[in-house]
Amino acid sequence: MFQKEAMPPMKPTTKVAGRLAVAALALTATVAHAQDPLPSWNDGPAKKVIIQFVRATTDKASAQFVRPEERIATFDNDGTLWAEQPMYFQLLFALDRVKALAPQHPEWKDQEPFASLLKGDVKNALAGGDKAIVEIVMATHAGMITAEFEQIVKDWIATAKHPKTGKPYTEMVYRPMVELLAYLRANGFKTFIVSGGGIEFMRPWVEKVYGVPPEQVVGSTIKTKFEMRDGTPVLARLPAVDFIDDKDGKPVGINAHIGRRPVAAFGNSDGDREMLEWTQAGSGARLMMLVHHDDAEREYAYDADSKVGTFSAALTAEAASKHWTVISMKNDWNTVFAFQK
Amino acid sequence: MFQKEAMPPMKPTTKVAGRLAVAALALTATVAHAQDPLPSWNDGPAKKVIIQFVRATTDKASAQFVRPEERIATFDNDGTLWAEQPMYFQLLFALDRVKALAPQHPEWKDQEPFASLLKGDVKNALAGGDKAIVEIVMATHAGMITAEFEQIVKDWIATAKHPKTGKPYTEMVYRPMVELLAYLRANGFKTFIVSGGGIEFMRPWVEKVYGVPPEQVVGSTIKTKFEMRDGTPVLARLPAVDFIDDKDGKPVGINAHIGRRPVAAFGNSDGDREMLEWTQAGSGARLMMLVHHDDAEREYAYDADSKVGTFSAALTAEAASKHWTVISMKNDWNTVFAFQK
Repeated sequence: MFQKEAMPPMKPTTKVAGRLAVAALALTATVAHAQDPLPSWNDGPAKKVIIQFVRATTDKASAQFVRPEERIATFDNDGTLWAEQPMYFQLLFALDRVKALAPQHPEWKDQEPFASLLKGDVKNALAGGDKAIVEIVMATHAGMITAEFEQIVKDWIATAKHPKTGKPYTEMVYRPMVELLAYLRANGFKTFIVSGGGIEFMRPWVEKVYGVPPEQVVGSTIKTKFEMRDGTPVLARLPAVDFIDDKDGKPVGINAHIGRRPVAAFGNSDGDREMLEWTQAGSGARLMMLVHHDDAEREYAYDADSKVGTFSAALTAEAASKHWTVISMKNDWNTVFAFQK
Repeated sequence: MFQKEAMPPMKPTTKVAGRLAVAALALTATVAHAQDPLPSWNDGPAKKVIIQFVRATTDKASAQFVRPEERIATFDNDGTLWAEQPMYFQLLFALDRVKALAPQHPEWKDQEPFASLLKGDVKNALAGGDKAIVEIVMATHAGMITAEFEQIVKDWIATAKHPKTGKPYTEMVYRPMVELLAYLRANGFKTFIVSGGGIEFMRPWVEKVYGVPPEQVVGSTIKTKFEMRDGTPVLARLPAVDFIDDKDGKPVGINAHIGRRPVAAFGNSDGDREMLEWTQAGSGARLMMLVHHDDAEREYAYDADSKVGTFSAALTAEAASKHWTVISMKNDWNTVFAFQK
């Protein structure tokens, strides 16, 4: 490629010619981009379905035209927009927080699941199942005000690295899906995240990374309480689950936050099933897609056997019978992560 | 004014001159409108505060400039955007629903608060206080799926009339506030409703009436449950309160739905106090305003003495000490309802 350092000195005229050539290249790239809004997608069935759906819903002459205000697209986050292995990144965040908070909690040395975690034995810590996870989440996500938690998330996301790739978590996002978000928005769609993850864990960084503003994030929540502290109003984060935005909670969360039925929905696991069913049950054009993790080389390969992002045989069967499009990471994406390009 | 029917026949040249005159008039009107985005507001302190705030927050050269994505404005609904006397309109809706549903509930004849309601004795029905209101709300707002409830609200709002003015409820909206919503949006603000009223009672009509889309409505909710009925996914409305978006619930609701702190907030009662406190506690330019119902002639006059929209002496004192602007309907508005114009 074009490497400035390796170029020989040029005479003025050559310089001008070189600049023109660079300008021409840039123009070509722009035109190519305009022609292909989804460059990280291979020309295959998934890409075709997306482009046909967008054309049909945005062409006023089409019988499937959707008014701009009705163009709602919802995206799961873990495993759909960014990776979720070796475990949900929010859980990795919580484990890091346990370590950071340990000096203030000497009692954790003898108290599970914290004792195992602090010894580095994650497997044993999580052996307690949901109960252990709730304890870890509450110990790390509650007990502070919202502004403090936002700063904690911002600091972590700016510094923490993925255990396998060594990349910041914000680089563990799927480039084809970021293109898809932008493509839908360029066609008048309002893009929402609808995730089982914590709403306040996502909001501090998703606008920059996905272009999705905080008010378009739906997720799980713990209870908050308005309090006046020394004359300053704060929202205290309480150690109590408020809402779990997963499985049959997703249509509930969509209805509560958005109040319109999506016309397009994107997921990757059994947790997204009801969101896709709810989306499909509306009238007119609909787009339901599931990302399938079948690329052990560039990402991970898992489905029914996984502890996170389970893609069961029942989901596979439902997708087939209801004509939901399964996106093969291996075959449909020429790039998974931007850093692999 | 210009009345087509009353004009004498014109010679061609006069026609052209006439058209030019009409065009000039239209231009003048456009310029006048561009000069005054708030024509229903008298030139007084409230209007001045609004215009100065918008100029300061949208001028890039201003120290108080606010990035477009941060321009969040929240509006209470009852008593702020539309009237709330002789009682909250949603309660009038519920009373109408009790009458409509009575044939399916023969037991209501002997059961309070329904028995009194069906005899036309609203006062006695509501004597049971909050408990009676919750019973009326649950009997009329729950027990159906969301799509059914949406249709019930649409039918009611299209036909019901205000008991005093005889006007449809959608005409009981304050013209100056509708102008204010449009003015803020024209300046890049995202306008949200944050109401103690039911979210699903507002969503079916607020987009048309206020220009606020369903996804920008925050309100009180009852629980909903995702169910498959004969292969069709539905959301059933359950007779259980989920969230009350009033008083200290308003900052909680704002944080849950919007995830950003508003830079401008508008209310009219003690129920809006915490929303204004939460708004003001952010850094940079802030606008906090309270509509005061002091116009018995064109609307209603009430404050601390009212059962709905209570404007207590404590709120008056807080508004003064914190420099919140109180809007006098009588003095600041030259028009209250469009139909009075």
